[in-house]
Amino acid sequence: MSVASIAAEREEFVAGAIFANPSVVASRSDVGESMIVYESQTPAGNLYFIETGQVRVYQTGNDGSTRLANIFGAGDWFGIAALAGIATYGSRAIAVSRSVLWAVPADQLLQVLGRDPKLARVLVGQLASRLEEANDMAARMMFDDCNQRLVQTLLRFSRTAAATSLEDGGVVLRITHQQLAQAVGAARETVSLGLTQLRQRNLLRTGRNRLSFHPSALEQFCCQQATANQPVKVN
Amino acid sequence: MSVASIAAEREEFVAGAIFANPSVVASRSDVGESMIVYESQTPAGNLYFIETGQVRVYQTGNDGSTRLANIFGAGDWFGIAALAGIATYGSRAIAVSRSVLWAVPADQLLQVLGRDPKLARVLVGQLASRLEEANDMAARMMFDDCNQRLVQTLLRFSRTAAATSLEDGGVVLRITHQQLAQAVGAARETVSLGLTQLRQRNLLRTGRNRLSFHPSALEQFCCQQATANQPVKVN
Repeated sequence: MSVASIAAEREEFVAGAIFANPSVVASRSDVGESMIVYESQTPAGNLYFIETGQVRVYQTGNDGSTRLANIFGAGDWFGIAALAGIATYGSRAIAVSRSVLWAVPADQLLQVLGRDPKLARVLVGQLASRLEEANDMAARMMFDDCNQRLVQTLLRFSRTAAATSLEDGGVVLRITHQQLAQAVGAARETVSLGLTQLRQRNLLRTGRNRLSFHPSALEQFCCQQATANQPVKVN
Repeated sequence: MSVASIAAEREEFVAGAIFANPSVVASRSDVGESMIVYESQTPAGNLYFIETGQVRVYQTGNDGSTRLANIFGAGDWFGIAALAGIATYGSRAIAVSRSVLWAVPADQLLQVLGRDPKLARVLVGQLASRLEEANDMAARMMFDDCNQRLVQTLLRFSRTAAATSLEDGGVVLRITHQQLAQAVGAARETVSLGLTQLRQRNLLRTGRNRLSFHPSALEQFCCQQATANQPVKVN
């Protein structure tokens, strides 16, 4: 089996793979809007799978500042700390809209892995992809200026549950300037200024708690900027 | 089986788990000092396992600046892009000292996972741990000032192959100020100044391309700083 076909297989990773197994006792819950799924200090015992709805995960710094780390939607799972054997989640998960979640005990899931080759492959592939993405994000925090990070964050979130696709290839992203700033790692004012500049280039439209744009146009703009910054000699 | 016992089991993750399997054709190579294992654009087909030696992984920004992302040693594996089904490694891996490496084709490893429950559990646990660490690092790039990141980086590298443990609980870390700056995400001068301040507090000694310190003392200093910065009200 090629790596490419395994990558395609990931798309099929659904609740069924876990829940079909009788030795996994997953519990289903209906979570209201703005409800907290777990806090930073909650013992990390469960992995969560989203049947419907949307969950955002925040990290908090010592000075109380907040980072919006991830936006998850239907078919996604979160609460990786439980798989890592870490004592507490170390982040806060909040349901942004009413959501149906499945809590899967991590120790039971790890037991099942050995009996379900496909689940093992898919889980390893997904974790590896997320790890690559997290490493890229850490690097971007070092390399990219605030506007580059803003564009990258818009593109990243355009592939999440916070985005609704339009027929013309555009997306509507439901997010406030403050939340976007918490993902980019910049002051709200800086992010608002960056959004204004993108609007002036006709790359973005702003509305109340929503932004609409064409990811392809933004991607092209981003590539042009990157090429312009590319030095002749790379170390 | 508890998550805690699985975490302990990870320590046993050795080459044997992979290489005992006849359907994995791993190739062993002797890599000289400063040799490149892979470049950013190298097709990501293999996962690498370090038998002996040390490998450092660097990411490069569009402007040619470099981030020292990870330091790996004997018993570690790297080249995660291959497991993620990503086309190229997207980073550069360099052997810092003469090293013996095993190249394991990722597609073969993924196939074997399903037949080796323990390997699957260990690999998922390790990937989950690394993902949590990468997320924490991305958050630190946002939350922490340069000196806090410097201390965290020293602590992180004190647990890698770049560190040698001393009998009194201290460590000697072989790294240049420039390399440390590439890991912290700051100018070399800023990092050198931070190191001088730590030396003045008797928390660190500096030598030629080496730093010695007691991780426990540095950790305590770090906690004190964090407590001092903690606001009364957390959002």
